[in-house]
Amino acid sequence: MIIHYLDNSATTRVSEAAAQAALGLMRDNFGNPSSLHEVGLNAEKAVEQARHTIAGSLGADAKSIFFTSGGTEGNNTVLFGVAEALRRRGNRIIVSAVEHSSVYESAKRLSEMGFDVRYAPVGSDGVVDVEALKALLTEKTILVSAMTVNNETGAIQPIERIARLVHKLSPEAVFHSDAVQAYCKIPLKPKKWGVDVMTVSAHKIHGAKGCGALYIGSGARVEGGRVVPLLYGGEQQRRQRPGTESTPLIAAFSKAVEEADIAVNGTYIRELNAYATERLSELDGIAFNSSEDALPYIINISAEGVRSETMLHHLEAREVYISSSSACSKGKRSYVLAAMGLPDDRVDSSLRISFSKYNTKEDIDALVEGLRDGLATLQKR
Amino acid sequence: MIIHYLDNSATTRVSEAAAQAALGLMRDNFGNPSSLHEVGLNAEKAVEQARHTIAGSLGADAKSIFFTSGGTEGNNTVLFGVAEALRRRGNRIIVSAVEHSSVYESAKRLSEMGFDVRYAPVGSDGVVDVEALKALLTEKTILVSAMTVNNETGAIQPIERIARLVHKLSPEAVFHSDAVQAYCKIPLKPKKWGVDVMTVSAHKIHGAKGCGALYIGSGARVEGGRVVPLLYGGEQQRRQRPGTESTPLIAAFSKAVEEADIAVNGTYIRELNAYATERLSELDGIAFNSSEDALPYIINISAEGVRSETMLHHLEAREVYISSSSACSKGKRSYVLAAMGLPDDRVDSSLRISFSKYNTKEDIDALVEGLRDGLATLQKR
Repeated sequence: MIIHYLDNSATTRVSEAAAQAALGLMRDNFGNPSSLHEVGLNAEKAVEQARHTIAGSLGADAKSIFFTSGGTEGNNTVLFGVAEALRRRGNRIIVSAVEHSSVYESAKRLSEMGFDVRYAPVGSDGVVDVEALKALLTEKTILVSAMTVNNETGAIQPIERIARLVHKLSPEAVFHSDAVQAYCKIPLKPKKWGVDVMTVSAHKIHGAKGCGALYIGSGARVEGGRVVPLLYGGEQQRRQRPGTESTPLIAAFSKAVEEADIAVNGTYIRELNAYATERLSELDGIAFNSSEDALPYIINISAEGVRSETMLHHLEAREVYISSSSACSKGKRSYVLAAMGLPDDRVDSSLRISFSKYNTKEDIDALVEGLRDGLATLQKR
Repeated sequence: MIIHYLDNSATTRVSEAAAQAALGLMRDNFGNPSSLHEVGLNAEKAVEQARHTIAGSLGADAKSIFFTSGGTEGNNTVLFGVAEALRRRGNRIIVSAVEHSSVYESAKRLSEMGFDVRYAPVGSDGVVDVEALKALLTEKTILVSAMTVNNETGAIQPIERIARLVHKLSPEAVFHSDAVQAYCKIPLKPKKWGVDVMTVSAHKIHGAKGCGALYIGSGARVEGGRVVPLLYGGEQQRRQRPGTESTPLIAAFSKAVEEADIAVNGTYIRELNAYATERLSELDGIAFNSSEDALPYIINISAEGVRSETMLHHLEAREVYISSSSACSKGKRSYVLAAMGLPDDRVDSSLRISFSKYNTKEDIDALVEGLRDGLATLQKR
């Protein structure tokens, strides 16, 4: 069956090499990395090798990489862990208005717990309004979280600039960036940029669901480079993240990172994006919600007069798979597009197209034909 | 290479069928279960099928099963989630003195946070002293946690009896049992027994590392059958446990549960245990720390005058792999054996042998010969 899977920001197909790596750690090298004998040691070697690979991809030391069960755990660890660790130094927490739900909902919870949570607004391009963010930065700010690339629009945030401002105006604050949608798509240099903590995940880059990593730099300045852990238990990962490591998924993650060629993939995806933009522009009734400066892996559009879900199911019948907003929201109205100031009808008819290296122009052709047909038959007159 | 892997309480080899199930969810059925289209729906079906399988194995409804990243996350969710949810009703939390570190260390943290944490002692057989536990139960007790089977000795706790006492004397309390070492080895009926929350894990039963589940019964009486979540984010798993589900590991877990025949495996393991007990008894200088009533999957012994790690590495050279205490403790002195009142020299020379259905009498022969040789050459005179 030929399917046109254009929902790669929701999740990706695991690459064959990554799947085989997982298989190796399930069948042959099956030990517990904490076991003191050779079977355990062999598994530990695979984990440490992976830690070096992930570290290398972020220009970081291996000791600053901690494996997690994914982006949600990573983001929760940072928000609750930093808030708890630094609560005596201040009460203010700032997150952008377009964060992924795992940051957004954690921030909401922190607000309920008494923290002074503020949301940095974004412009119509989905990019954080740096001047507005600047006005929120105080000496009592302990945590600022701004994602590297937005998951719905592909908007690229000025992370390096934000980092500089945070460290200048809020010297006590830890600066965190959720880089799940940016990882292996643009070069990430948290240490150089002044990002103290960064979240990445495996399943958006052809690794498997259930695995991610946190970069926790020495700049986190919390408990000797740790944040307060979310989990308590054994001695694994220097107690920052106890629990037996998911060796199969960690090996798959590492393989996926090794395979990712940012430059080669980037060139290919830019071509796909240009082709898609050109073909989508042929259609009457398509408005672009992603700005031209967005990451080319994501194009967010609205199909005039057709509700997102209606169009999504219309396309599904043609084996074209895209998303309404983010997968995690299960069809709820997008607060990200609303924060960009888009009117309700644009938000309610929004569609996210997201590419991977496995996509072809044929996928885009199928999408465009499906949209053309959908616009002609589904529009409310 | 023939290895004699007798460390199955640390982790197990993933079964071929379970590994293939994981592979299927990585390569073919790779969707995000939260996506609204068919690719997502197919992945969601696999997750829901697994949820039914796990539920069935616990005599529970599917809606009471929540997938986690493993036992550590499960136990942390319960301890912190119940404590937070019920803190207005009382302050006392009781855990047994022989809990796994993920319960033990969480309890320690709760104590630091101001909860009145008490430890229920065990007898020399490693079984909770029910009368002593009874004396700790008050009306202000909000959480009691007692594991079903101990990970170091195999001691089986009188869970049903403890559950009755807890509900009678501490009507506000949630009763939790960490059943990671019991799962698929003895029949578990949390609902019938009065266990409100139960933790299970995949990698001890030939599933893969990085996946587990929580049974949260209606008896948890917290926020409509939920405990306060550990993670915040998307809509997954009714917000009890947001984050994209690890579909490959969940499918593998389900397959491993389907394959587990408690009766057939139990008969085989009892035979292995009887053979091992007989052969180990031949040796001078071996003392048994597990009681005769313990789960036959685990035999804890001490080798007189030889430190655990020394013996472990001696056996490793013969490709016999066992454990000093639990893998998670990475060689720290066992607080479990200490709580049983064993003298320091017995604790420091303790060894854990743990079986799976893949073991044979040849593995035991290799172990016994290794121990015999080790006792002869390594003993401090």
